[in-house]
Amino acid sequence: MQADIEESIKIYGKKIDELLKEIIPPDRDDYLSEPIWHHLRTGGKRIRPAICLITCKELGGNPDDALHFALAIEILHNMFLLHDDIEDEDTMRRDQPTVWVKYGVANAINAGDYLLARAYHCILISQIPSERKLQLLEIFNLTYEKTVEGQALDINARGATDYTVEKYLELVRLKTGYYLACGMVGGAVVALGNIEGTIDKIWALGKLMGPAFQIKDDLIDLTVGKGRGGVIGSDIKEGKASFLYAYTLELANNDDKASLIGIMTKQREETTDDEVQYVLNIYNKHGAIEHAQKYADDLIKQTYDIIDEIPTDNKAVFRDIANFMAQRMT
Amino acid sequence: MQADIEESIKIYGKKIDELLKEIIPPDRDDYLSEPIWHHLRTGGKRIRPAICLITCKELGGNPDDALHFALAIEILHNMFLLHDDIEDEDTMRRDQPTVWVKYGVANAINAGDYLLARAYHCILISQIPSERKLQLLEIFNLTYEKTVEGQALDINARGATDYTVEKYLELVRLKTGYYLACGMVGGAVVALGNIEGTIDKIWALGKLMGPAFQIKDDLIDLTVGKGRGGVIGSDIKEGKASFLYAYTLELANNDDKASLIGIMTKQREETTDDEVQYVLNIYNKHGAIEHAQKYADDLIKQTYDIIDEIPTDNKAVFRDIANFMAQRMT
Repeated sequence: MQADIEESIKIYGKKIDELLKEIIPPDRDDYLSEPIWHHLRTGGKRIRPAICLITCKELGGNPDDALHFALAIEILHNMFLLHDDIEDEDTMRRDQPTVWVKYGVANAINAGDYLLARAYHCILISQIPSERKLQLLEIFNLTYEKTVEGQALDINARGATDYTVEKYLELVRLKTGYYLACGMVGGAVVALGNIEGTIDKIWALGKLMGPAFQIKDDLIDLTVGKGRGGVIGSDIKEGKASFLYAYTLELANNDDKASLIGIMTKQREETTDDEVQYVLNIYNKHGAIEHAQKYADDLIKQTYDIIDEIPTDNKAVFRDIANFMAQRMT
Repeated sequence: MQADIEESIKIYGKKIDELLKEIIPPDRDDYLSEPIWHHLRTGGKRIRPAICLITCKELGGNPDDALHFALAIEILHNMFLLHDDIEDEDTMRRDQPTVWVKYGVANAINAGDYLLARAYHCILISQIPSERKLQLLEIFNLTYEKTVEGQALDINARGATDYTVEKYLELVRLKTGYYLACGMVGGAVVALGNIEGTIDKIWALGKLMGPAFQIKDDLIDLTVGKGRGGVIGSDIKEGKASFLYAYTLELANNDDKASLIGIMTKQREETTDDEVQYVLNIYNKHGAIEHAQKYADDLIKQTYDIIDEIPTDNKAVFRDIANFMAQRMT
C-alpha cells in the first residue's frame, strides 16, 4: 500500500500544480507573482493536498470535489513558510535566498497575506453545495487560526525559563496537529459530510500524529542529523524549543538550566560546536533521548488505536497515511 | 442628517466594541492578546463597521444580522495596521510604540495573522442563512485581496522612475476603494440580498470615493498639514507616493525628476525642511496642487452621480455617508 500513496501523490500533485497556476498566475506584473513564484519554484512535494484527495477518494468521494480545498491547504502551507522565514530570520530555503532576503520584509509579509487571500478564494469558488463549502471554510479557518496560535507559543518559547514538556506538547498540537489533520478532515467531509464522530476522531488523530512526528523530527537532529552532510545538533544552534530541550529543562539543576537557556538564546552563527556537544551531554545525563524515543513510540501507538475507533468502513486509508508519514520520519 | 451619522457611529460603536471583546478576549495568556490589545487600546472610532450597520438599517435590514460582518471589517482594518506598520517601518501610532517595536517583528506579523483568522471566524459564526454568509465571505475576501494588491503597488511605488497618475489611481482604487465600499456592500447584501445592479454600483462608488478622499488627504498634507502642530509636507518626508508626486513626476524635466525621486527615497529623518520646500516648489511650478484639487472635486461629483444611479428607493444613506466622509476630509 505504501507504494500506492507515493503513486497517488505524484498523480494528484500534477492536478494540484495545474490549479495552482490558475489561482496564482506566475507572470503577472503586480509585485506579487514574482516573489511568490520565486518561493513556489523552490519546490514542495504537494504531500498535504494529496493526502486530502486520497482520503476523499478512499472514503468514496470524488477527489475533484476536494481539489480546491486541497490546493488551499498547499497555499496556506506556503503562506506560513513566507511569514515563518521572516519570523525566524531564516535567510535560505532549499538553496535559494528566502523571499524577505530577496524582495525585502515588506514584500514578503504582503506576499504571504496575498497567498492567504487566494487560499480562501480557492475554496470560495469551488463547485460544491453551500453547506459543504461553509464546513470546509470552517475547517480551513480553524487550522489557520490554531497554527498561528502555535506559532505564537513557538516564537516566545526560546528564552522562556519556565518551558515544559506540557508547553511543548501544547505548542506542537497547535502548530502541527491541526495542520496534519486538516487535509484528512476536509477530504472526509467532502466524501461523507460532517459526521460528528468521524470528524472528531480525525482531528484527535492529528493531535497525536503531530507531536509524534515532531518528536521524531527532534530526535533525527541528534541522531542522523538534518540537512546536508548530516550535521548533528542544528536545532540546538537554531535555538529550537525541542522536546529534548523541554524535558531536560524540567529536570536540570539551576546551573545546567542557565547554560541551556544561554546557548538556546544565542544567535545561530555564534553557537560553537563545543556548546552543541555540551547541550548533548546535558540531554544524555538526563536520558532525554531514550525518553523522547519512548514518548514518540507511545504516541504512535495511540495514533493507531484512535484509527481503530474511527466509525467508517474504509479506515485503512488513515493507517496507510500514518504509515507513510511515519516512514518519511525515519 | 450629518448629526445622525455621528450619533449612529456612537451607538453602533458600543455594540461593535462589545462583540470585539468576545471575539478577541483581552486578557488571554497566549502571546497574542497582549500585542493585539496594546494596538486596539490605542483607539479607533469604529467608523468602518458603523457605516456597514447604518447602510443595512437604512435599506430596511436588521443591523444585528450585519454585526459580525461589520466587526470583521474592523478587525481586518487593524490587521492591516499591524502589518503596514512593519512594512512602512512606522515606530509610533497614536503616541504609542507600534506593535513590532514593542513586541518584535515576529510577534507583530503573527498577531496580524491571528486577527485575520478571527475576522473570518467572526463571519463564519454569524447567524444568517448559508447563501448570504457565503456572499459576505466573498465580499470580505475580495476586499482583503484587493487591498493587499494595492499595498503591493504602494510598497514598490517609492523608488519607481515610471510612476504615473494612472498608477497612483490604480493603487488607490485597490488599496482604499474596495475597503471603503466593503461595509456598504455587506450592509446592502444583508438588507436586500445580492442584487446585481445595486451591488455593482456600490463597488463602483468605492472606486470613486477612495481616490477622491485619498487625493484630498494628499492635499491636506500640503495645505493645513497632518499630525500635531500642522507641519506641512510630512508625506514628502515619508516618501509617500501621493497624487501630487505622481502628477509632477509625469511633467517634470529630467533634473527635477531625479531630485524628486532622490528626496522621495531618502529616509524620513534624513529629509531636510529645505528639501520639503524644494519639492513643494516643483509641485507649484507644475500647478500640481490646483490640478489635484480639481481632480478630486471631479471625482466627488462623479460619486454623487453614481449614487443617483443606484436602483434602490432609499439611497439617501449613500449620500449621507459620502457627505460625512467628505466632511472628515476637510
